[in-house]
Amino acid sequence: MEVEQWLHMANGDGENSYATNSRLQEKAMLETRPVLQGAVVELYRSLPDKSTMVVADLGCSSGPNTLLLVSEVIGTISDHNREEEQEQRPPAAAMELQFFLNDLPGNDFNLVFRSLDRLQELTADRRPQYYVAGMPGSFYTRLFPCRSVHLFHSSYSLMWRSKVPDELSRGAYLNEESIYIGKSTPPAVIKLYQEEYQKDLSLFLTLRFNELVRGGHMVLTFLGRKSKDMLLHGEASSMWDLLAQALLSLVLKGLVEKEKLVSFNLPFYAPSMDEVKAVVEENNLFNVEHMSVFESSWDPQDDDTNDDVVLGCSSSGLNVARCIRAVAEPLIKKHFGEAILDDLFMVYASMISKHLKKAKAKYPIIIIYLKAKH
Amino acid sequence: MEVEQWLHMANGDGENSYATNSRLQEKAMLETRPVLQGAVVELYRSLPDKSTMVVADLGCSSGPNTLLLVSEVIGTISDHNREEEQEQRPPAAAMELQFFLNDLPGNDFNLVFRSLDRLQELTADRRPQYYVAGMPGSFYTRLFPCRSVHLFHSSYSLMWRSKVPDELSRGAYLNEESIYIGKSTPPAVIKLYQEEYQKDLSLFLTLRFNELVRGGHMVLTFLGRKSKDMLLHGEASSMWDLLAQALLSLVLKGLVEKEKLVSFNLPFYAPSMDEVKAVVEENNLFNVEHMSVFESSWDPQDDDTNDDVVLGCSSSGLNVARCIRAVAEPLIKKHFGEAILDDLFMVYASMISKHLKKAKAKYPIIIIYLKAKH
Repeated sequence: MEVEQWLHMANGDGENSYATNSRLQEKAMLETRPVLQGAVVELYRSLPDKSTMVVADLGCSSGPNTLLLVSEVIGTISDHNREEEQEQRPPAAAMELQFFLNDLPGNDFNLVFRSLDRLQELTADRRPQYYVAGMPGSFYTRLFPCRSVHLFHSSYSLMWRSKVPDELSRGAYLNEESIYIGKSTPPAVIKLYQEEYQKDLSLFLTLRFNELVRGGHMVLTFLGRKSKDMLLHGEASSMWDLLAQALLSLVLKGLVEKEKLVSFNLPFYAPSMDEVKAVVEENNLFNVEHMSVFESSWDPQDDDTNDDVVLGCSSSGLNVARCIRAVAEPLIKKHFGEAILDDLFMVYASMISKHLKKAKAKYPIIIIYLKAKH
Repeated sequence: MEVEQWLHMANGDGENSYATNSRLQEKAMLETRPVLQGAVVELYRSLPDKSTMVVADLGCSSGPNTLLLVSEVIGTISDHNREEEQEQRPPAAAMELQFFLNDLPGNDFNLVFRSLDRLQELTADRRPQYYVAGMPGSFYTRLFPCRSVHLFHSSYSLMWRSKVPDELSRGAYLNEESIYIGKSTPPAVIKLYQEEYQKDLSLFLTLRFNELVRGGHMVLTFLGRKSKDMLLHGEASSMWDLLAQALLSLVLKGLVEKEKLVSFNLPFYAPSMDEVKAVVEENNLFNVEHMSVFESSWDPQDDDTNDDVVLGCSSSGLNVARCIRAVAEPLIKKHFGEAILDDLFMVYASMISKHLKKAKAKYPIIIIYLKAKH
């Protein structure tokens, strides 16, 4: 239960909340759009008349992006209906949409539910009737009845593991001063992380296959790796390694006990495309319809991924630190206590600034579009 | 939106929260049990193999009782399966359960979701697989896709109206120093309340009929009236009339403006059995399978409804005041501000104590069990 209780984005909508620090997720949605729209239209056209299309967003978090999927799907269907009408094709099926927004029970669902009336502003023509429910629970457990969901979507969530690898959390192996896969991580620990990833993804695919209707679809977007090299500039591992260094600097200042740092590890793994393909093929329940990778600057305020120079390194450092704080604060607070948070993320921001001076850092993001085999 | 934003039970689990003041609702569930269990078994036995039974609780609130329906339904099915097994009848359908807990978006769904793991402790034999989602929204709007729900349940919610009658809230009629139907309420205002009630219940029945599968069931429990007399001792109206008197005493002390009291009215109506029957018959979508009324002492700590004497009037007064505070605090806070709350409910408690000295006060609670016509 540890991870399930503390792995959630920072609640509320204050300066350090996830709600105000989630532009990266918004950009990912733009990249995923063509794939997602294709899936929605295909599913929609295959539905019998007067039926309901069920869509679930796994790891919805709480913030402006939480409703992005809902508005994308509604918008896609409205546009499709309008086009059909203009070309005077027979009207598509009368259909309703049921959305489930899923995240761990620690997520701020109250914030999500209280923002639902903003959706009413979407007044596209021929908008289908829709309903939005919340579904608390880990997506590494069953969440829905058999054959009840048409489309699963998940953005920026599947790099989180169900737990820190057992042998690591009970101290059979030590990860020294690293909190994920860092410079000091022994090969045996890397292997534990990889095995945990394989088990988790395989479990995820099997669970979702049982919940999907025959031929149901999944569009998944998550942090990945571009190469075999675990510590390439820009990869998620180097971002966590900088956070480990910031924690170490607090150890040296006497603000954090060394043992605390050694016993802290993230339930995280960013796989390469090959690693993802290998699990999907081994699992053998889904066909890969599309798979690609795009890059997103670490700095959520920086939209230019072609340029390799960071102009304002110190402001970028702050932006990135704020963004990571929104994601990791509950986990860090649980393990190290609240008192270190401000210090930690100040040090972290300056370390990131220094890191960005070498070159712009970009996360590789993997998009994968799967269809359930019959 | 006014009512929808502020009509919710007091959040959290502190002394004045709904969570710690909801024993009345628990007792109502005990009274409803035989009817509910009958409905569950009948629906369960009618389901095809490998299907899902969908159950929605409307006005679930947030507290220990929120999960009462879920555990009742699971328990009923487990018991049924065990009996069948003992009598060596062929095993019933393999079936999953999907629950939707509904309340207004202002409800504390976070508290509900974080208490869900307590459900895991229910480890009855042959327990069906179940899933629990949250569904925010007013039950005076559509909440679910067409023909998607097998059983609706609602406890202690349907006496709340969708809004204060329009002509009353815009001041076309005045309710003087009453906040519901009180001694000073003119007949025209009573008529407005009755019309609002008829419109609301008829709308509710039509909405739910569309959401229910063919022949779906509803078990509804709500505050009612035993007689035509609106102000009989013990009726909900006399409880609200005492709250109006407590507010008036703050007006006389200069703590509340007279205009504030005059412009405050509750979105509430407790109907008689005849009034309920009339709307259900006029609406013509449901058959009444069962209808009854039971009494519940105002004091949630008092389980003896046969005795008419209140032994500890002052402690009973406090219990009742705390209970009503948990229900009405958000509405009162919104209209009068937070500052008056402690004073108001202290005065209210002493007024209730005085009231109980005359005789024990009991709310009439109506149970109605409906089946959708084909």
